[in-house]
Amino acid sequence: MGKEEEDAWVVMKTARAPSNIAVIKYWGKRDEKLILPINSSISVTLDPEHLSATTTVAASPAFERDRLWLNGKEVSVEGERYRNCLREMRARATDVVIESSGKVITKEVWSTLHIHIASENNFPTAAGLASSAAGFACLVYSLAQLMNVKEKYEGELTAIARLGSGSACRSLYGGFVKWNMGQEADGKDSIATQLAEQSHWEDLVIIIAVVSSRQKETSSTSGMQESVKTSPLLKYRAEEMVPKRIGQMEKAIKSMDFAEFARITCADSNQFHATCLDTSPPIFYLNDSSRRLIGLVERWNRHAGEPQVAYTFDAGPNAVMFAKNKEVAVQLLKRLLYQFPPSAEADLSRYDYLGHS
Amino acid sequence: MGKEEEDAWVVMKTARAPSNIAVIKYWGKRDEKLILPINSSISVTLDPEHLSATTTVAASPAFERDRLWLNGKEVSVEGERYRNCLREMRARATDVVIESSGKVITKEVWSTLHIHIASENNFPTAAGLASSAAGFACLVYSLAQLMNVKEKYEGELTAIARLGSGSACRSLYGGFVKWNMGQEADGKDSIATQLAEQSHWEDLVIIIAVVSSRQKETSSTSGMQESVKTSPLLKYRAEEMVPKRIGQMEKAIKSMDFAEFARITCADSNQFHATCLDTSPPIFYLNDSSRRLIGLVERWNRHAGEPQVAYTFDAGPNAVMFAKNKEVAVQLLKRLLYQFPPSAEADLSRYDYLGHS
Repeated sequence: MGKEEEDAWVVMKTARAPSNIAVIKYWGKRDEKLILPINSSISVTLDPEHLSATTTVAASPAFERDRLWLNGKEVSVEGERYRNCLREMRARATDVVIESSGKVITKEVWSTLHIHIASENNFPTAAGLASSAAGFACLVYSLAQLMNVKEKYEGELTAIARLGSGSACRSLYGGFVKWNMGQEADGKDSIATQLAEQSHWEDLVIIIAVVSSRQKETSSTSGMQESVKTSPLLKYRAEEMVPKRIGQMEKAIKSMDFAEFARITCADSNQFHATCLDTSPPIFYLNDSSRRLIGLVERWNRHAGEPQVAYTFDAGPNAVMFAKNKEVAVQLLKRLLYQFPPSAEADLSRYDYLGHS
Repeated sequence: MGKEEEDAWVVMKTARAPSNIAVIKYWGKRDEKLILPINSSISVTLDPEHLSATTTVAASPAFERDRLWLNGKEVSVEGERYRNCLREMRARATDVVIESSGKVITKEVWSTLHIHIASENNFPTAAGLASSAAGFACLVYSLAQLMNVKEKYEGELTAIARLGSGSACRSLYGGFVKWNMGQEADGKDSIATQLAEQSHWEDLVIIIAVVSSRQKETSSTSGMQESVKTSPLLKYRAEEMVPKRIGQMEKAIKSMDFAEFARITCADSNQFHATCLDTSPPIFYLNDSSRRLIGLVERWNRHAGEPQVAYTFDAGPNAVMFAKNKEVAVQLLKRLLYQFPPSAEADLSRYDYLGHS
């Protein structure tokens, strides 16, 4: 009876977190367990209307174990990444008052409660559109709401999201975000910080061309392990190239210098894919449709005399493109639809028109 | 009357030179005029039965200017590369006795005689199969025959072929050839030398898969100029990576270590294409068919436990593959024909089975 009352209650929170696209790429870990990168990275957060994860987390004494549903399908929550996030969040839980009953869930109770997690993406999973970034950012954010977690230092939650998926740490902020690789062994300083609100650069328009929604053959995790192990060019890139580019990109964003932003974004995307090709065995994420998109943009920019559009590709064939302004974005969509008619066999099947969040 | 007699005679020579495929790639010049490379390279000379140029050179007082026919079509001989080769060869001409008349063509006469050149390839031109290498090697060699040129130092002719097309210097020898980048400003020491006769490694079988016989969009000449100008990874590769690999490759060839030969060959091909991708705007020579070929070989080698086949791609989508021995070569052809049935839309249209020359 008393037990039944105990079991009766359940608390839950729902949150949504956007995906993000790196313009200075993250590829390679120096610590697999703590997910510490070999270089810093910079990203733009996408519009949650188009690319986001929505996660509901619930806690109840009636739950006998932690459980997880991704896009409606139950999957194991025993993976180290989920365990680490849950452990770190439980450790930071504080008193929560249940409004209906006035009952207080104390830190001690949180440590005994099991969590049910249900998460959904509104875009293809594992197709190089940073689904895991949105997913883990959303998990950490919703648990923070549920457990009333307060950050002891700025970016503390991003460091926990990082334990789930490196790039997830960049999805906890909107606009332009930098993930500082950090130096400390425990990863405390490997956190994300916001460089600028999206409102800082309103003209910028993001267009996503989904070349293929198939899941990628090589996961980012194993891909970057192979690259770190076998690509001498990746080591050189991380140590010599990226530090320079991070500074240049921060400056370009601060000054809204689209030409410079586009130059660095395209060059860094191509250099990232170059290090994948330098991996043994080589990793290919771009396909012939991706290359046609690149050709289209490069010809356009050359013809225009200065960059109008930038492209970047993560670990998949899908392009994220940045248009200088709305007029250019409309032109870009026209050209994409002309070059890749949805009917044609070219598997460029969908476009998304996004402002970024 | 005397004039007519003068005009009556013509001397000619015909020669054939094979193409070659680099296993340590040449990409980038430190001197555009003298065609001096930013790194040394190593190649395997192909079987002239399958990939070669045949050139006939003729001289007669009746010829009013130098003329050139490529694959039956007359083209200008005013290009610097042809001019340089002709100039250097004329400067080295020695007395030639015409058997029929006993007439002697002296060095002084050679300097006044015009040359007609007719050259043909038995394979697609400018499709990344080193047609210019075979062509200029053949031009220099046939002129040496015609003008009775004797080398003052070993490799002197290779340095002249280099003035026509860098990789041409490697086509003057059979078997395994090294192009030493050299140090001197005049390029005298940027010559090719033979590492080993083909007979040194008889087991090795070369198979060429012609993915496309279309001419490449980006010529090697302009492509490597762009890469030298814009790819930081190319600079690192040339200065830090290639010197190590040259030594490793020489050792692998000397000891007929196929596993090591295959490892370096594939890695260097992929790294070369990685630097093309790191170029701004990026250069793509591989297409989806090329990547399927690479995947086929990589899976096979991994499954076999040690490399059975190596692949390498020059500035085009066509694969040159090395099979460990004849048995493997037969297997490879079977798998290629199964994976790329000539009927299918995949544009892998032709295979060549070669022993190398």
